[in-house]
Order: sequence, then C-alpha cells, then structure tokens
Amino acid sequence: MQNQESLAPAVVLVRPQLGMNIGMVARAMANFALDDLRLLAPRDGWPNPDAGPTAAGADHILAGARLADRMGDALAGCRITFATSARPRHSRKPVLTPREAAEKMREAVAQGLKPGILFGPERSGLTADDLAATDFIVTCPVNPDFSSLNLAQAVVLMSYEWYVAGEAPAAPHEADPPAPFNEMDSFLTHLDDSLEKSGYFDVPGRTASTKRSLAGLIAHARFTSDDLRMLHGVIRSLVGRQPD
Amino acid sequence: MQNQESLAPAVVLVRPQLGMNIGMVARAMANFALDDLRLLAPRDGWPNPDAGPTAAGADHILAGARLADRMGDALAGCRITFATSARPRHSRKPVLTPREAAEKMREAVAQGLKPGILFGPERSGLTADDLAATDFIVTCPVNPDFSSLNLAQAVVLMSYEWYVAGEAPAAPHEADPPAPFNEMDSFLTHLDDSLEKSGYFDVPGRTASTKRSLAGLIAHARFTSDDLRMLHGVIRSLVGRQPD
Repeated sequence: MQNQESLAPAVVLVRPQLGMNIGMVARAMANFALDDLRLLAPRDGWPNPDAGPTAAGADHILAGARLADRMGDALAGCRITFATSARPRHSRKPVLTPREAAEKMREAVAQGLKPGILFGPERSGLTADDLAATDFIVTCPVNPDFSSLNLAQAVVLMSYEWYVAGEAPAAPHEADPPAPFNEMDSFLTHLDDSLEKSGYFDVPGRTASTKRSLAGLIAHARFTSDDLRMLHGVIRSLVGRQPD
Repeated sequence: MQNQESLAPAVVLVRPQLGMNIGMVARAMANFALDDLRLLAPRDGWPNPDAGPTAAGADHILAGARLADRMGDALAGCRITFATSARPRHSRKPVLTPREAAEKMREAVAQGLKPGILFGPERSGLTADDLAATDFIVTCPVNPDFSSLNLAQAVVLMSYEWYVAGEAPAAPHEADPPAPFNEMDSFLTHLDDSLEKSGYFDVPGRTASTKRSLAGLIAHARFTSDDLRMLHGVIRSLVGRQPD
C-alpha cells in the first residue's frame, strides 16, 4: 500500500513546447504541494535550460521529472485520469469543473487510487487520441470570448483546487471586538464637548439631530477600545490641548 | 447608477517590475472577463514593450490600463478594497481566502460598490503602507514551504474565483454604501494635515506607524460619503477654523 504522499496527483504535460512554461508549471506545483511531474514527448527534449529560471526555486520538481514517450508510461501508476480540455463536442466522458475534479481526486486518493492529470500542448491542446483513455474531462469555466488559458495557469488552477479541497475548513476569522458601550459613550461625550466649545453646534441647522447623526456615525464605525484611545488623542491634539 | 460591467473589480498592480508579468496579468484578466487594469508606479514606466507578447491577444486591456502615481488615484472609483498578501503579522484587518473575497466582491457589486484588488511587486509584495487603507487582506492557501506565488498566478486565482462566484447568485444586503476610496483618501489627508499642524506627530513614538494605524482605523469604519462630509466639518471646527 502506497502512502498518502505518493498518491498525490501526477501532473502530465503532453508534448509541452516551451521550457519556460515547464518551469512555471513546476513552480505552481510546488506552491500547492505537488511534486510528481511527467513530461510526455516535450518538443525541445529534456532537460531544457529554459525551465530553470521560471521554476523560481522548484528545482527538485524539475530534477525529479519523469520523461516518457508513450502515454502509458507517462501515466504509470495512475489509476484514475483527468484530461484538461475545452468541452469536447463528441465525447460521452463526464465533464467536470476543476473544483469537482479536485473533489473526485481527493476521494480517489482516500481509496488508494493515484490520479493523473493531463495538460495539452500550448498551441493546440489535447487531441481526441490523448483523451481516449482518460476517465474524466476537466473544463475550466472561462470567458467564452477569451478562452485560451496559458498552460502554467491551467496547472495553477487545477493544483490550487486540489490543495484547497484537502484543507480542513478554516476557522472563521474573528475581527477585533468593538469597544464596550461605556467607552463609546465617554468618547462621544468628549467629542460632543469639544465640538460644543469650538462652536460647531452654533451653526444654524446644527442641532440635536446633528448630535444624533454623529452618535450614529460613531456607533456604525464599531471602533475598538484601541481605536477610541487613539481618537481621544486625536481630538485633544486638534483642539490644541497638550498632547498626552 | 453604473452598470454591472463598470462595477467589475479593478485589478491594481502596485509597483509591478516586469512588463512580461503585466502582459500575463492582462491575459488572465481576459480569461475571466475582467478588463479594468490599473498600474501604480510601474518600475519600467508605461507603456512597456515587454507586456504585449505575453498578453496573447488581451491588447485591449493593456491599451486601456490606467497609469497612476498615487494609491488614491489607482483606486479611484473603488468602494471596497482587497489587498493580496501573505497573512500579515500585525494587522487586525479581516483575512479572507480568494474564494471568500470573491463572494464579498459579488455581494459588493450587487450593492453597487466597485471592488479594487491590490497586487504587490514581484519581489517584495505589498508594504504595510500599501495595506493601511484597504478593507480586507486576501491570503491564498499555499504550501507553507513554497509560498511565493508568481504575480500573474495570484491574479489568475483571484480572477478565477471572481468568475466562478458569478455563476452562483449573490446575496444582496447592507443599506449605506461606504464612500469611494478617493473620498476616504482625501479625508485622511485632511485629518493627517490637521494633526501634523497640531503637533500630534511630534510626540515621541508617534511615527509613520501611527499614521498607518489611523488609516486602518478609518478604513475599518467604512464611513459613507455623508459621514465623511460631516467629519470634515468636525475637524474644521475642532481646529478652530470658521465652521462652514
């Protein structure tokens, strides 16, 4: 029985053209904790010196990349396969979004099945022959008027969804609590008194309702205790009292 | 009332370094039906001949890119702002995943609020000053051992989540929209200037970080345009200028 790590999806680049893109794919895989890269018949051979710079430190993935010249070898060890492609016209294979595919992959891994994900060449994508033996098509939702995804970016999206699907739900982020009412109230009193002294309420039309608006504005802001301490200092400074 | 299209999020690249990456960002935006690109102080000026090739046809986005030299201009018209960043150590801003941020953006747009999303420079990311006035931090779940995302790939993930979130209906609510960023910005400038004159920042220990705290406090309050008008009057009155 293989361990969980070696069951993580293999990323299979089918006839990739640019070394630069292979490097970017390696970087994207490292970002999302994948490391099993396979290259099926890369156009410019392998290794490719253009891959290193864009890998931005993901050299272990490039160094460990498996070179293959047949699909069967490229997918060695994979027991469930996904092919990223625009929705094919004549295919009865199930079509999934990257998110749905990521969930399927997590289920598969939980059952001991290693997934493999095929990505086609930059210019043309996967052929019908490439798709023939795969289990699922993965089609990314994109702008129909500008649907051509860069190879590395397709890998980013699929790897990201894989990674997110494996995360425990995040604990909700608790924002800082607003100050207790008495602190709000004494701040308002400070503000009102200062405005009173500065003649703010002497202006025609500025009345009790103006005071209410200010109170409402301050309440709405949900200032914390630290905020209020700072704002007390701001008022003291603005009215020209010795800052504390 | 603006139409839905012009409310789609603005992508703001803060001090981007490589033209190549700006092109890739444009392509990613086009893939996910975004087109409002803003460039804040790009290192190599603008236009940049390196951007065209990697845009892969998204030339309309490059041609329409808005060049800015101040954050306030870069975020003009945006009423809710997101900053992509690793989880900051000292910040009380809410931290969202790209998926949560996308939902927030959809809700905001449904309320007529245009979102702006900040992406930092390739090498260093956004500074504490860049983050000061934004409403939310967006942190992408990534492999902690290899966490540096390529700029264009960060844009891909955020744009993808925005696009996918649009396929589900968004929940409307919240009555008073917060003021647009430029109004917030000019209020902050008024406050900072008044505090400067009153000697607020002369106190030992009150420095640039105090200024950032104030900006953060104001951003957090999500004041409306009416609120800000009132607060301008409050400052004028407190500093003893003739109330208007």
